[in-house]
Amino acid sequence: MKLGTQRSDDRDGRLVVVSHDHSQVADASAVAETLQDALDQWDETAPRLEALYSALNEGRAEGARAFRAEAMAAPLPRAWQWLDGSAFPSHGALMQRAFKMPPIESDLPLMYQGMSHQFLGPREDVPFPTEDDGIDFEGEFGIITDSVPMGISAADAMAHIKLVVQINDWSLRTLAPIEMKTGFGWIQAKPACSVAPVAVAPHALGNAWQEGRVCLPLEVTWNGEAFGRPDGREMAYGFHELIAHAARTRSLAAGTIIGSGTVSNQDHRAAGSTCVAERRGIEMIDHGAPRTGFLSFGDRIRMEARSPEGAPLFGALDQQVVRA
Amino acid sequence: MKLGTQRSDDRDGRLVVVSHDHSQVADASAVAETLQDALDQWDETAPRLEALYSALNEGRAEGARAFRAEAMAAPLPRAWQWLDGSAFPSHGALMQRAFKMPPIESDLPLMYQGMSHQFLGPREDVPFPTEDDGIDFEGEFGIITDSVPMGISAADAMAHIKLVVQINDWSLRTLAPIEMKTGFGWIQAKPACSVAPVAVAPHALGNAWQEGRVCLPLEVTWNGEAFGRPDGREMAYGFHELIAHAARTRSLAAGTIIGSGTVSNQDHRAAGSTCVAERRGIEMIDHGAPRTGFLSFGDRIRMEARSPEGAPLFGALDQQVVRA
Repeated sequence: MKLGTQRSDDRDGRLVVVSHDHSQVADASAVAETLQDALDQWDETAPRLEALYSALNEGRAEGARAFRAEAMAAPLPRAWQWLDGSAFPSHGALMQRAFKMPPIESDLPLMYQGMSHQFLGPREDVPFPTEDDGIDFEGEFGIITDSVPMGISAADAMAHIKLVVQINDWSLRTLAPIEMKTGFGWIQAKPACSVAPVAVAPHALGNAWQEGRVCLPLEVTWNGEAFGRPDGREMAYGFHELIAHAARTRSLAAGTIIGSGTVSNQDHRAAGSTCVAERRGIEMIDHGAPRTGFLSFGDRIRMEARSPEGAPLFGALDQQVVRA
Repeated sequence: MKLGTQRSDDRDGRLVVVSHDHSQVADASAVAETLQDALDQWDETAPRLEALYSALNEGRAEGARAFRAEAMAAPLPRAWQWLDGSAFPSHGALMQRAFKMPPIESDLPLMYQGMSHQFLGPREDVPFPTEDDGIDFEGEFGIITDSVPMGISAADAMAHIKLVVQINDWSLRTLAPIEMKTGFGWIQAKPACSVAPVAVAPHALGNAWQEGRVCLPLEVTWNGEAFGRPDGREMAYGFHELIAHAARTRSLAAGTIIGSGTVSNQDHRAAGSTCVAERRGIEMIDHGAPRTGFLSFGDRIRMEARSPEGAPLFGALDQQVVRA
């Protein structure tokens, strides 16, 4: 099953089912007005959405119309909770080595609470106040849960992963270390994220969904040039383990989004990166100084993970960075 | 003007106006169903809520009924954003001195993004998985904004402070330093906060609202015994400055709640504290080791800030800590 949110006058948009090949959408508001509404009653709505998805794929859905990325919002244009992990060990290790940062000593998953009142859609411009803040992208996978009780085990958490998404966690690198040094996490360095238009049920990922990980390369281009395509497989913790970590002392509301952190592989040189900071780290190690600058206004970042056969899964994020 | 949210079948409760002396409430759903709805259209709803508040105080409100703290939820039972500052320098200085923590070097306000999908009401039990986590309270003041544009100045931010609230930021002290050390801020150490039942318009605080600060003692008792009553005056930054800090690279959604951090005064010995951690810090300095333990299941924490004349303002938080 594939779901999306069409932009509308309502801030939460309007729920649609997206056909398997991303050619068509069908209005799902007879089942639930919004994706949040669907998640709030998932046991009841999911079978009906699955039925609508089948009908759409078989050409039986009434009022089906063409899928247009421009008409789509983020699947959840706002969410009650956004928790971002940093689950790829190669990312942290590289940054520490390159920039001589002290190693982060933690036996637990790394995770911060991010702003969740706004997620940008796949074609929306991304506004920043100044280029001086070190504008960067972070390609990630993420999941959306239904309601999760406090204290859940990782094994039990797996069944609460209802949808898988693809995220760009925009980051401001000049501000990030200043905030990180306080121990309080990030406010200014982590403005609104973007989310690709199609949220996919885990089973619809087939073999690409393994042990709570999206085992697919995330392909990133910067102004049309290839930048990286590391694979989501190398997470130190699966998403079910990230849920259990988050729910240790709190329940999670339906519609909680949890991110993987920057997708990164041990073999950086073959895979490339999903953020500029990591490429700068490699340059630091190779040449003693970074050579690649951060983003400028007008730059365009495209991110997409496709199936091994090249079929669309989450749709593409394709956005321009602009002055706020 | 004083507003509150009555518990109902809806998760966001039902908006009520509270009389100046907290004796009565009047249903405000003819103006806005919920406080979030009212904040979303504040320019339109605020004058009508003010008129209802006047009518209630003058005995002219239809359907007025007795105020009961047990019937109240947090003013926003869930919010799109919760940003908590740490704006009382004496708190940080004491913790660093007592526990030999490295000083936090920051020219900017300290702030973290907290969980906002649940705020407990003033009489709700507070569930934790285990006493071993070092259960503690933190007495705070906070404000609620309407929609704030990115890049706002502190001076302009003042007008976006629509309501003032009183908060208990429940904290788990065994987990906090582990998470803080990563630089990512807190997840497990900061579960749901509680908010006192009455949200007060800044002008209704009279002289107690000065330079974006609540200049009133916050009185805390632990199982009925006096624990502290430090004053909110000593914030290093006013709430307008905290808004400007938060909005440097993001817009803030209407209904954003910003906290002061643990209320703390330079003269700890006279004022006492609003969290156990600070008292333990003083004991550490005085005796070489903390003497006061953290909370046990069944303990009751009460917090209330009243006017200089002893009149109620925010109502009281009075809650029991229980096993989840």
